[in-house]
Amino acid sequence: MSEQRAVEPFDVVDLIGRKRFAEELGDAEIAWLVDAFTRGVVAPEQMSALLMAIVIQGMSRAEIRAMTAAMIASGETMDFTGLGRPAIDKHSTGGVGDKTTLPLVPLLASLGVAVPQLSGRGLGHTGGTLDKLESIPGWRAELTNAEMTRMLTEIGGVICAAGSGLAPADKKLYALRDVTGTVAAVPLIASSIMSKKIAEGAGGLVLDVKFGSGAFLPGLEDARELGETMVRLGTDSGLRTVALLTDMDAPLGRAVGNANEVRESVEVLAGGGPADLVELTLALAREMLALAGMPDVDPAPALADGRAMDSWRRMILAQGGDPDAALPVARETEIVRADRAGEIARVDARAVGVAAWRLGAGRARPGDPVDHAAGVEVLVRPGDTVTAGQPLFEVACDSPGRLARGLESLAGAVEWGSAPERPLVAGRIA
Amino acid sequence: MSEQRAVEPFDVVDLIGRKRFAEELGDAEIAWLVDAFTRGVVAPEQMSALLMAIVIQGMSRAEIRAMTAAMIASGETMDFTGLGRPAIDKHSTGGVGDKTTLPLVPLLASLGVAVPQLSGRGLGHTGGTLDKLESIPGWRAELTNAEMTRMLTEIGGVICAAGSGLAPADKKLYALRDVTGTVAAVPLIASSIMSKKIAEGAGGLVLDVKFGSGAFLPGLEDARELGETMVRLGTDSGLRTVALLTDMDAPLGRAVGNANEVRESVEVLAGGGPADLVELTLALAREMLALAGMPDVDPAPALADGRAMDSWRRMILAQGGDPDAALPVARETEIVRADRAGEIARVDARAVGVAAWRLGAGRARPGDPVDHAAGVEVLVRPGDTVTAGQPLFEVACDSPGRLARGLESLAGAVEWGSAPERPLVAGRIA
Repeated sequence: MSEQRAVEPFDVVDLIGRKRFAEELGDAEIAWLVDAFTRGVVAPEQMSALLMAIVIQGMSRAEIRAMTAAMIASGETMDFTGLGRPAIDKHSTGGVGDKTTLPLVPLLASLGVAVPQLSGRGLGHTGGTLDKLESIPGWRAELTNAEMTRMLTEIGGVICAAGSGLAPADKKLYALRDVTGTVAAVPLIASSIMSKKIAEGAGGLVLDVKFGSGAFLPGLEDARELGETMVRLGTDSGLRTVALLTDMDAPLGRAVGNANEVRESVEVLAGGGPADLVELTLALAREMLALAGMPDVDPAPALADGRAMDSWRRMILAQGGDPDAALPVARETEIVRADRAGEIARVDARAVGVAAWRLGAGRARPGDPVDHAAGVEVLVRPGDTVTAGQPLFEVACDSPGRLARGLESLAGAVEWGSAPERPLVAGRIA
Repeated sequence: MSEQRAVEPFDVVDLIGRKRFAEELGDAEIAWLVDAFTRGVVAPEQMSALLMAIVIQGMSRAEIRAMTAAMIASGETMDFTGLGRPAIDKHSTGGVGDKTTLPLVPLLASLGVAVPQLSGRGLGHTGGTLDKLESIPGWRAELTNAEMTRMLTEIGGVICAAGSGLAPADKKLYALRDVTGTVAAVPLIASSIMSKKIAEGAGGLVLDVKFGSGAFLPGLEDARELGETMVRLGTDSGLRTVALLTDMDAPLGRAVGNANEVRESVEVLAGGGPADLVELTLALAREMLALAGMPDVDPAPALADGRAMDSWRRMILAQGGDPDAALPVARETEIVRADRAGEIARVDARAVGVAAWRLGAGRARPGDPVDHAAGVEVLVRPGDTVTAGQPLFEVACDSPGRLARGLESLAGAVEWGSAPERPLVAGRIA
């Protein structure tokens, strides 16, 4: 211990004490902290005290950049320059009913862009892209790097599980933040997301930063700060990055769950689907096309004429899935009806997300199984005028006990009154 | 894990998140946190994140009281009501050359008060009372409860090692705070000290709260806040508590070390000794006599007429020590001389404390041995006028290498100029 201490360049208790008083730490100090934590020299209880000091006192732009660089340096980096297509990445900070990745990736692939989507599984009230796709019989999330590269070259899109090689320090830090109340802080969220995205090595990145009740950071100003921080981090690292600030106060589309979200995504790929989901898909597609050097390409026709659907079918088949197979359907369903007539002011995305989670669509702990058939269909939107007894939600799952808990979560999900104007895309940061 | 969580009444991540935003936690929540940490249900990395949030956001009076009560409840309590003498306790927040406990306990014992001093060993630049007494050949710190009670009944004073039964949660928390940069915060210091003092169950308590460079909290206002917080905690628990705010900007007395501090304490018990040490000993003694119901007893004569010395000899003998044995003397000594003539504005207690520590009088890690002969004699005081070449310090230790490191620490210890008036006792809180 004494010998080990002697060779370490910094004293962790000293660095924690400085952050406690909101002092700025230097690049070398932050690089050492992340590395020493990964090596086990800085103990979890020391890192969590430092993280709480960061959460409360904040980090400067230089500190966030150093943190991100240190996490990138902890693992491998990828390179998508040899695909024969421009590789453009996309990331959403997560929301309720946010299945945009599913239609977006084949849409871009059909237009000549390569979109590598290294995705995760859901936790809590926001869903995970892999959970959704795993409701397709036969589909598998794990691919080798060679399989991934072949799909990007031949089809142009791939959605698969992220390997453990990118930014392992971030993975270890995130697991610590998750149990120590230090998740929701802009410097830490931004460096966590961007370390993986920069390490992936795409040529451009479009961020979908959500705000509203169903988002990770509900306030628009917090979302803007997060977006600006991430765009700066990308730009500073040579990764061209654009962020859209998008509304997540109401669920996106109608479907919230897993299999039902795949069904709705296929509707979009068939030229239909809910207007808000189509609008967001096209808005993100235009940003990605612009970064790919195709600012004049209109993505809408590829949804209408079946090109995007063709790419979807090829992507699913390449990962062992059957695009024509029936998706799982729940045994129990129930309709929630309006107990009055009137205009709907709000449909609370968080309440709907929690309901879907309790119905079994999400998980409380990493590794828990999910019920692919469980979920909520949101049958009304803010601004709709309904009659008493009109259906508001349809909930579905395989267990009567869960059904009751899901219904309970929906009790206050609808607010009545005049619905304010809320544009879906509230801002753009480039 | 899932079952265990289900039976716990609170979610630690939720409580951490609330403290992050400076919300007040309830009595039951704090009681659960301390208990669950002791049981290992709340992990060290969770507790350290909470502690950092407390350090930055503070705690309300009710929260500090709940924290103290929870730590008391984690262990046993003692009772000194059957001694036939009033039991009055004393605690110092620690300083450089602060050997007051050594003359004070036998002085009070000689006047009919019972003083139980459950003491600790030193760490860093402040010394430990047990380390000092262990320089007396044969003296042992560990006593059974029965031995302690017999000494308090027959002699009136005992200085011994604190057992592990009082506030074990505080011990576990303190070990965590020590490595996570969460030590120096008034709510945590106050609850740590007072949980043990209240659990000891004396009839009154006098606190010596230090400020100045050699103190744990150098600022007078921080010391005042700590004193007020501790007095309130004691009073709220039915323990009559008085605090003196005393200056620790210069070392107390001349001797800083272990054996040399015992020698200086014996001088005080013989009616001599440095004026500041005598002044503080008598000020604390008067407060303790007042709490013991003897406000009119003057303690000074007991130092002059040998009564206090008699009690000292009986105390040392009862713990196996030889009060007439020669104390250890260092092999190497060196005089530090003034490189100019002039008035001394300041003698920096912290620099002297660090020098004594580096000479071997203190320890860097718990369990390290200490050199009982090592230390510093401070030969000048603020306000003294000296000639060039006049001795300022005498340093002593057994190793030439340590001698050099100790001398280095003393390099800037003396500041020249006009010395400000600094009363030794700057305030009183009751």
